[in-house]
Amino acid sequence: MNWNEIRKKARENMKGYCRACKRCDGIACAGEIPGMGGTGTGRSFIANIEAIDRWRLELKTLHDIQKPDITSEIFGYKINMPVIAAPMTGLKGNAGGFLTEREYALMAAEACKNIGTIYMSGDANDPDMYPVGLDAILKTGVIGIPFSKPRTVKEIIEKANLAKKAGAMAFGIDVDGAGLIMMIRSGQFVGPKSKKEIKEIVDNIDLSLVLKGIMTVEEAEIAADAGAKAIVVSNHGGRVLDFTMGTADVLPDIVKAVGDKILVLVDGGIRSGVDVLKMLSLGAKAVLIGRPLMVAAHGGGREAIEFYLKKVADELYQAMILTGCKDLSSTPKVYRAN
Amino acid sequence: MNWNEIRKKARENMKGYCRACKRCDGIACAGEIPGMGGTGTGRSFIANIEAIDRWRLELKTLHDIQKPDITSEIFGYKINMPVIAAPMTGLKGNAGGFLTEREYALMAAEACKNIGTIYMSGDANDPDMYPVGLDAILKTGVIGIPFSKPRTVKEIIEKANLAKKAGAMAFGIDVDGAGLIMMIRSGQFVGPKSKKEIKEIVDNIDLSLVLKGIMTVEEAEIAADAGAKAIVVSNHGGRVLDFTMGTADVLPDIVKAVGDKILVLVDGGIRSGVDVLKMLSLGAKAVLIGRPLMVAAHGGGREAIEFYLKKVADELYQAMILTGCKDLSSTPKVYRAN
Amino acid sequence: MNWNEIRKKARENMKGYCRACKRCDGIACAGEIPGMGGTGTGRSFIANIEAIDRWRLELKTLHDIQKPDITSEIFGYKINMPVIAAPMTGLKGNAGGFLTEREYALMAAEACKNIGTIYMSGDANDPDMYPVGLDAILKTGVIGIPFSKPRTVKEIIEKANLAKKAGAMAFGIDVDGAGLIMMIRSGQFVGPKSKKEIKEIVDNIDLSLVLKGIMTVEEAEIAADAGAKAIVVSNHGGRVLDFTMGTADVLPDIVKAVGDKILVLVDGGIRSGVDVLKMLSLGAKAVLIGRPLMVAAHGGGREAIEFYLKKVADELYQAMILTGCKDLSSTPKVYRAN
Amino acid sequence: MNWNEIRKKARENMKGYCRACKRCDGIACAGEIPGMGGTGTGRSFIANIEAIDRWRLELKTLHDIQKPDITSEIFGYKINMPVIAAPMTGLKGNAGGFLTEREYALMAAEACKNIGTIYMSGDANDPDMYPVGLDAILKTGVIGIPFSKPRTVKEIIEKANLAKKAGAMAFGIDVDGAGLIMMIRSGQFVGPKSKKEIKEIVDNIDLSLVLKGIMTVEEAEIAADAGAKAIVVSNHGGRVLDFTMGTADVLPDIVKAVGDKILVLVDGGIRSGVDVLKMLSLGAKAVLIGRPLMVAAHGGGREAIEFYLKKVADELYQAMILTGCKDLSSTPKVYRAN
Repeated sequence: MNWNEIRKKARENMKGYCRACKRCDGIACAGEIPGMGGTGTGRSFIANIEAIDRWRLELKTLHDIQKPDITSEIFGYKINMPVIAAPMTGLKGNAGGFLTEREYALMAAEACKNIGTIYMSGDANDPDMYPVGLDAILKTGVIGIPFSKPRTVKEIIEKANLAKKAGAMAFGIDVDGAGLIMMIRSGQFVGPKSKKEIKEIVDNIDLSLVLKGIMTVEEAEIAADAGAKAIVVSNHGGRVLDFTMGTADVLPDIVKAVGDKILVLVDGGIRSGVDVLKMLSLGAKAVLIGRPLMVAAHGGGREAIEFYLKKVADELYQAMILTGCKDLSSTPKVYRAN
Repeated sequence: MNWNEIRKKARENMKGYCRACKRCDGIACAGEIPGMGGTGTGRSFIANIEAIDRWRLELKTLHDIQKPDITSEIFGYKINMPVIAAPMTGLKGNAGGFLTEREYALMAAEACKNIGTIYMSGDANDPDMYPVGLDAILKTGVIGIPFSKPRTVKEIIEKANLAKKAGAMAFGIDVDGAGLIMMIRSGQFVGPKSKKEIKEIVDNIDLSLVLKGIMTVEEAEIAADAGAKAIVVSNHGGRVLDFTMGTADVLPDIVKAVGDKILVLVDGGIRSGVDVLKMLSLGAKAVLIGRPLMVAAHGGGREAIEFYLKKVADELYQAMILTGCKDLSSTPKVYRAN
Repeated sequence: MNWNEIRKKARENMKGYCRACKRCDGIACAGEIPGMGGTGTGRSFIANIEAIDRWRLELKTLHDIQKPDITSEIFGYKINMPVIAAPMTGLKGNAGGFLTEREYALMAAEACKNIGTIYMSGDANDPDMYPVGLDAILKTGVIGIPFSKPRTVKEIIEKANLAKKAGAMAFGIDVDGAGLIMMIRSGQFVGPKSKKEIKEIVDNIDLSLVLKGIMTVEEAEIAADAGAKAIVVSNHGGRVLDFTMGTADVLPDIVKAVGDKILVLVDGGIRSGVDVLKMLSLGAKAVLIGRPLMVAAHGGGREAIEFYLKKVADELYQAMILTGCKDLSSTPKVYRAN
Repeated sequence: MNWNEIRKKARENMKGYCRACKRCDGIACAGEIPGMGGTGTGRSFIANIEAIDRWRLELKTLHDIQKPDITSEIFGYKINMPVIAAPMTGLKGNAGGFLTEREYALMAAEACKNIGTIYMSGDANDPDMYPVGLDAILKTGVIGIPFSKPRTVKEIIEKANLAKKAGAMAFGIDVDGAGLIMMIRSGQFVGPKSKKEIKEIVDNIDLSLVLKGIMTVEEAEIAADAGAKAIVVSNHGGRVLDFTMGTADVLPDIVKAVGDKILVLVDGGIRSGVDVLKMLSLGAKAVLIGRPLMVAAHGGGREAIEFYLKKVADELYQAMILTGCKDLSSTPKVYRAN
């Protein structure tokens, strides 16, 4: 198995919905929604890549760090690498339908279980989507965090209860789904959530709450104050609002403001172990990866997802040796270029 | 109806005069005049795009703004969205002649009427052009603002009188047409206008005067002092002078200087609802859009113009939810990237 | 006659030695020497273009400048536009041999005579080249400035005497030819010139001396102190040393240092009337244009050279209207972008 | 012989492993390992090129430097040009196998001997590689510096002893090889080296120690304190860690910190005599060149390597005339662009 072959196979199976580029960077697919692209000009997706790329590492080999430790702990759960499978749904519309929602959920959950990391499941327009993720968590026993769209408070609480029953370790809302006009027009409410609403949710669910889609210090503080236990700094892979900053641009200030009160995760454009190390150096406790897992799934199923995650783990391990970084609590300084 | 199909059809009908690019950005058509490009290297057109792109929005969804208000008011007229059809003429030379001047004017005016926004008509070398716009205003009852080239003061006043008779709500001069050597050589005077001349025009016409083509604080103050009621910050879509700044580069200072004395509109490179929101955030009260309406007209007539304007309205509405913006008097802060 | 057709014809006649690009910018031909490119990576040629492009103009049309004056005066000679034909030789090796040296010299000199501007002739490895330029000056009666390579002091003085006899109005040395190893290896000395040597030349010739190839304040002051009457800020079109600055980058400091003691001209990447206006705004008294004249000559002979120069004059005239610039002693401020 | 023909031939012989680009800049081959590319996105390779390109030279020809001296001295050995052949191995995997390791080593060593400069030989996974370089040094009598991978201290000392016997003038370790997981997995230890280990090596070998792969002031000081006699500022041609700075970015600070205590060499992206002059101006005493020698070897064997080195020497010589630089102890100031 080899990443170039996986990409080649994925490109065939995704029938133009994704080009499975050498580097998944949002350029070729700009504006393709449905599809895998960023919204509009694609600049929010591309901004994620550019924001990570700006940071540079110091190569250091005169030290004694020979076997770095890449394991981490999230909400008391030990994970073998600080990389989490991001919630993704809508495979038919966005990825061409080669895999069903259920097939993808199962292979992703199983891969995460085998690798020893967290699987996040999603929610979508179609009401059958959310339970598919719960089933995958239940069936595989993976450490799972189901995500709900920002529906009504009542609906969210119901979904959290279902998550609890499925054995989820936490529960999330991707609040950046608030602008999905299409969902509203199809009769399913989604919208912004006030601090009061977040509090109400926290008070009525029996799992730690994760808010995904935070891009400002102000919102990070609202999340923390309202009782969320974690945030994911995210612009939804650039799919909801054109021309946001990249997540790596806003991450450091958010960590500085709320990093001691709340767990800060990040996603957006992370492709390699070096990208992971940069995000950790900028203050994230772990990262989410999305699109590359979709490519892997289409290019070789569960095995390819595992192959990809192991590749990232190897790259992270190697990058830690080459920057003199013993474990994830001692990440290297990064330098901003240009 | 779908924007990609409209573009495809437009590309065919415009026979190489416009490529109806995925993003209309001035690169492919650089220097094509006649045609749809920017003059010379095309850098003034491209500068407009780059200037807008530099600005970034903050994604915010922890709030209670669920139904933003995108309506506005210009000179006491309520409009359903802060987007105005820019004056465009010369379809034969610049767009290939698939549509006559009259056909375009009518479909654009009708679309604006149906959407509920302002239609601006133009003027050109050919003396038959100006009346075509007046007819469209009269026939459709749209809120209309005819524009005259910077001809002699006498000619301008005559044109303003005709505008008044046609029921126009204001009257404009695109003063940046001052350098059209070809027009001068064909025996029709155009040229810069002194403050004294502007005053003379204001004193002798019975409509509010709009000056289009202002790119400096100094000229904005001349316009205000001379009694104009509005300016359009514009470099004429990059078609008159190569290597100007982009309009979004100069807009904030102009608004700061004259925003309380005079209405400030802007055009140049605005393509999407996100672009509109940025321009409003930088201080404009409404924006003009040009080339995309020409593409729409060639790709599907009046319906396509309306489709495009609704798309922009939807994008603006969605962007306002995702930035926590209740109405157009409370636009979000924007951040300059790079 | 039309510039695109001239380019097309030139491309054919130059047989790959020049692509006669839409914009002559040094990218396609990078490294092509022999040929029309910049040396090495081509970055000194490209730097000239980039340096001019960084400067932006203010569009201004609320004023009373309707008929700007584009004439100028150099060494007491009135010229109809501030654009001079740069010295170019080596047509066989660099342009493919469609035109002989003599043919090009005559058509360029005649065009300059007709337009009413200065013609500069060149020197090259082949000892027959220098007299060809003198003949063109003598035959056409153009205001001519022959240039010698930086040969021995004795040879330079001889060449200046020949120039005087041919009726030249001044005499130049392109001192940046000092690094032409090939010329040295073929037995013809060229090399740097010390201040003492420049003085010796000045003292022994009967024409004003112009030094071409000055890129620093230090060298500009040496030139002035040694008695030269003019300098051309130039990196030899990027053909001698890779990775210099662009001429528009260094021009302002040089003008500030020596502009009151010596005439400062500039070349490098100037293609349009807007480029001319920028260079004048940065302090040059007139500009030299090279490659586009070579393209014009190959695409339509003398008429095409005149066509191109008139085009530049029109662009300059129009740009002066659009920036409110009455004459060449009152050029507009320019603004640095990026 | 001509560089374009050498490249053409190399491209054929390297069968896609290298495209022998007009400029070898890491873009086309990004990520190709095995192959000639930079690791991951290729950005560390590309960063080397960009870092050199940022620096600009002042063209100066009003002086009396007519015959600059390009010779230098390293560890008391006079060399005819300040350019050293970088250690390269793994031709089968990385270059396609047209040349054996032994063939390349011999032709590179012989070319260096003929030109009068230093040859560095390498080490690799395959234990037969290291002796191949020693044989080439012994057979040609070139001034040679064999490099060992960062193996165990014991193995390194053994390799240094073999180097001494082969007549090497110094001995090196490319410490940036520390992250070669593949080598570790194949049972051969490589890893970082602590200051103590470096000291132990220095104390037990009979040759000056050179550490290659230093990218920080901190590590440069460790190297100097531990008794190394030279460092090579290098990111291993961008092949070990993605997203480091370019070597020309970090060189000046390193020279400032340790330049008076230890010899500082540099590699990474140096392609021409102008690049060499820039690196010397930034403080390096000499430079290493890698990939272009590999291209030359595949495009015309030993003669092509010599051709290339002479070309670089000519370019350096010419650049020194054109910047007024008498010898390598008086290099010109360089200016940072952008």
